[in-house]
Amino acid sequence: MSGILYGVGVGPGDPEQMTFRAWRIIAAAPVVAFISADGRPSRARTTASAAIPAGSRLLPIDMPMRADPSEGQATYDAAATEVARELAAGRDVAFLCEGDPLLYGSFIYLMARLQVDFPVEVVPGLPSFVACAAALRQPLARRSESFGIVPGTLSDAELRHRLSALDSAAIIKAGRHAGRIGRVLSDLGLLDRAMVVEEVSTERQSIRPFATDQGVLPYFATIIIPAGDAA
Amino acid sequence: MSGILYGVGVGPGDPEQMTFRAWRIIAAAPVVAFISADGRPSRARTTASAAIPAGSRLLPIDMPMRADPSEGQATYDAAATEVARELAAGRDVAFLCEGDPLLYGSFIYLMARLQVDFPVEVVPGLPSFVACAAALRQPLARRSESFGIVPGTLSDAELRHRLSALDSAAIIKAGRHAGRIGRVLSDLGLLDRAMVVEEVSTERQSIRPFATDQGVLPYFATIIIPAGDAA
Repeated sequence: MSGILYGVGVGPGDPEQMTFRAWRIIAAAPVVAFISADGRPSRARTTASAAIPAGSRLLPIDMPMRADPSEGQATYDAAATEVARELAAGRDVAFLCEGDPLLYGSFIYLMARLQVDFPVEVVPGLPSFVACAAALRQPLARRSESFGIVPGTLSDAELRHRLSALDSAAIIKAGRHAGRIGRVLSDLGLLDRAMVVEEVSTERQSIRPFATDQGVLPYFATIIIPAGDAA
Repeated sequence: MSGILYGVGVGPGDPEQMTFRAWRIIAAAPVVAFISADGRPSRARTTASAAIPAGSRLLPIDMPMRADPSEGQATYDAAATEVARELAAGRDVAFLCEGDPLLYGSFIYLMARLQVDFPVEVVPGLPSFVACAAALRQPLARRSESFGIVPGTLSDAELRHRLSALDSAAIIKAGRHAGRIGRVLSDLGLLDRAMVVEEVSTERQSIRPFATDQGVLPYFATIIIPAGDAA
């Protein structure tokens, strides 16, 4: 009998914002895997640490963050081989994911490689943008409004196209694109509504209007454009 | 000292998919409020029932679901008055919300009425669409893709406009609009990818391709258009 691969969303960072199900799966899994980007401590592992029993086998997966796509594929291949060894030996593996496993998660690539040979289950987690909206106490969507997640890495034209079709949005991966994102938001008349939330749900959480600071943003900052005045 | 109004997201329906924080706030609040639509038992209350102590005061808020907007406003005014009485008496109120409080939640209207006079905190919850994607084991978004939530109550032209600007989507409130939504998805070449998830995360959960059944959908069905093949 092979083990089960669990993709476990641990939420935005606050351990208390994990679900009971995520905790139970992590606590019961003999092997706990997580991405270790450039040797830095894994945020997902930090969030979940109280749920990981002392006797669990930890399986850090090294993932260079600035790798070109082909290197990325090779890294996922190597990770899948390592995880497959555990599953083939009958051990369940809980793969920890920040936020939700199926929203921009590395787990998606692992699942694609392993789901043919092994049983896979996904344990959803709280996406960071709902935690951002909660911190702001601002609505994300009402009635017939549309909310979307837009990566700041898109071109100006793509950003404009996507944001024009939405009533509210979370712009992720803004980082060094913050300056030109600010110009796009200004053109669309959205800049006054836009808020920056950094390190949401942690002790280091900070909130500010995006209009006052459009320099380079850290990777874990999210720009939230809440629903507008009209309800 | 007035009480605190908490908007508490209880997630998609499975009690195990509540967060520890949601449980703690519900367990500690002397008053637990929830929408009671047309006298039906509240789904949010059912999900949270194990977290509600026997001694809590229950405050059901009657909400006719097919009310015209002006009736809706009057209902929220009345609900706010009732909740304000508890807060003014110094009692915290946990207002239970399906999914997340700030995504299409009635809590948004209550918060708008009460936040001037009383402290408000939002406890985010797992939105149902991440639970749907987990049940399907299909990615919602990767790399520079955009995911959005689109209400099926929009006109055909609006649906087309919004879906064209997204790589993947959750169509909510499809219900009696399912037939024309199917035609829009077919026009956009998205029908083959579209899946219907009903009563996600509960014992009654069911999953099927939307293409095989485009009749009237129940209110709590969600159409998921997962991310496509290209990664």
